[in-house]
Amino acid sequence: MLPERQLIDRIRRIAGRVKNRDVIRGIGDDCAILQLPAGQQLLVTTDLCVEDVHFCSEWDPAQSVGHRCLARGLSDIAAMGGEPVACFLSLGIPPKLPQKWVDEFLRGLLHLARQFHLPLAGGDTSSSDKIIADILLLGRIPSGKALLRSGARPGDRIYVTGELGGAAAVLKRLFAGEEIRPNRTNRHFYPVPRVEPARWLRKRGLASATIDISDGLSVDLAHICQESRVSALIEAAAIPAARAATLDLALHGGEDYELLFTADRGVKLPNKIAGVPIAQIGRILPKSSHRSQIQIQDRAGQIKVLNPAGWQHFAKT
Amino acid sequence: MLPERQLIDRIRRIAGRVKNRDVIRGIGDDCAILQLPAGQQLLVTTDLCVEDVHFCSEWDPAQSVGHRCLARGLSDIAAMGGEPVACFLSLGIPPKLPQKWVDEFLRGLLHLARQFHLPLAGGDTSSSDKIIADILLLGRIPSGKALLRSGARPGDRIYVTGELGGAAAVLKRLFAGEEIRPNRTNRHFYPVPRVEPARWLRKRGLASATIDISDGLSVDLAHICQESRVSALIEAAAIPAARAATLDLALHGGEDYELLFTADRGVKLPNKIAGVPIAQIGRILPKSSHRSQIQIQDRAGQIKVLNPAGWQHFAKT
Repeated sequence: MLPERQLIDRIRRIAGRVKNRDVIRGIGDDCAILQLPAGQQLLVTTDLCVEDVHFCSEWDPAQSVGHRCLARGLSDIAAMGGEPVACFLSLGIPPKLPQKWVDEFLRGLLHLARQFHLPLAGGDTSSSDKIIADILLLGRIPSGKALLRSGARPGDRIYVTGELGGAAAVLKRLFAGEEIRPNRTNRHFYPVPRVEPARWLRKRGLASATIDISDGLSVDLAHICQESRVSALIEAAAIPAARAATLDLALHGGEDYELLFTADRGVKLPNKIAGVPIAQIGRILPKSSHRSQIQIQDRAGQIKVLNPAGWQHFAKT
Repeated sequence: MLPERQLIDRIRRIAGRVKNRDVIRGIGDDCAILQLPAGQQLLVTTDLCVEDVHFCSEWDPAQSVGHRCLARGLSDIAAMGGEPVACFLSLGIPPKLPQKWVDEFLRGLLHLARQFHLPLAGGDTSSSDKIIADILLLGRIPSGKALLRSGARPGDRIYVTGELGGAAAVLKRLFAGEEIRPNRTNRHFYPVPRVEPARWLRKRGLASATIDISDGLSVDLAHICQESRVSALIEAAAIPAARAATLDLALHGGEDYELLFTADRGVKLPNKIAGVPIAQIGRILPKSSHRSQIQIQDRAGQIKVLNPAGWQHFAKT
């Protein structure tokens, strides 16, 4: 490990290579300075990643950890239909951690950042027993145009992008002790935040509510139902489960970072948006005190209550 | 400890009591949404606090820890002459931590936040072995008016607000095993970020460079010298050491969160700014490759090199 000052200087050198015109001043003063164009609102999200909670150094390569930390934040910006503007990193590292781990972590993070023209504009460092990385993402959106969780209305259709359960299926195999090659195409190691499809929806005003699937479909759909004061009915047969993922993993597995959104029943959507397949999985119903928030119709046509059961940090420990 | 969902709901309830008109949407969606008035730039700073690095649960009450986490961020906004707009909290907590600790931590943080009309607009939570709190502070400043570290020029006078070394003197006694009452007036437990004095300076355009003293006078003055490409000469007799603080603690002790700033030699400053005493402690000299960045003149008139020796996390461990 480099001493803190040298570590910051090193990050500053690496981070300086990507520019964004909204960032007036990045690393090097007490605060970063940004200026958004007129008519734009600021989006802010923070995502805390802790070793042995969000990743496992034993099987997750440092590059993948860096990538996923940033992907979580990008996925939140995507869920609002926003454009990423700058990221900030608060990094806690054990003093005995090899510098190579830190360098690889930064490489993974900055590789993804470059794809979105996203500068690392600041942050903080500290020593810490376990590795901790808190990512702050700033984005922008034309004023009043953010896609919210709260806009779903009875009758709306429910959609998801891509495939579900893929990341959880890999995680399950890792937990079982299997060794898995951390390929760039593997959604557990290198998830792709759906910034483009969300932007496409926002520009056309087609989505009534959106959220990213970080905790699992059942949990994140429950968030939409709660914030929109509605309930939902989904169809098991329509869920786009990833190859190797069971229906259970597709319903409750987290960290796929796909988009979940609703749109008026009259809206015609293409099969793919920005190259990503779209599946209609159900519809929004009125809120009812007699009924649970989410129900699922199985392949035999039977309707059952679906309890949210995704990844919950405290419940697991 | 409450389960994560309940913890977030609880924070959301408590946090909702303070409003800021720039915050369009706080906790409850994938991102918070802010909108700054026209002609304002955004200031961003993050400060990572880790148990047993930045605070010690044995002697620091949870309220003080919450206060200090936020004070660090507010002090960074102050150092740029900015107005605080919103804070975000990423909180990692051991599952077995009593809920009372978390409640008291939030009480300390939100009590200070209220004084600056600062809403808690979002964040993240996770389980973690040690308590970790990453604070993100957003502020605003009229475009182009931020006070920077890089504006000091040879001939400028160097000033500090308040007294130095007070927080370090208390910390030294705590390390020695002494029990100290965590009074609200104690600068170790409840430091006061200098938002008002900095704003006063910024409005009048009187400071050429500013920084907050978080790491210690010697380290933070070295930052100004580095970013401004100058050197500095300070006088031992002029350093406003706190009662009970030695010159050494006043020079190198961190966490006083006073302001260090420079101003043109022609500028006349009052003895107090916004109720806080101001002391002139030296002057800026041209950069010289033969000479160290900072020199100090002792009470006998002798000039020596002053090596930066403040709080350095990694160097200590």
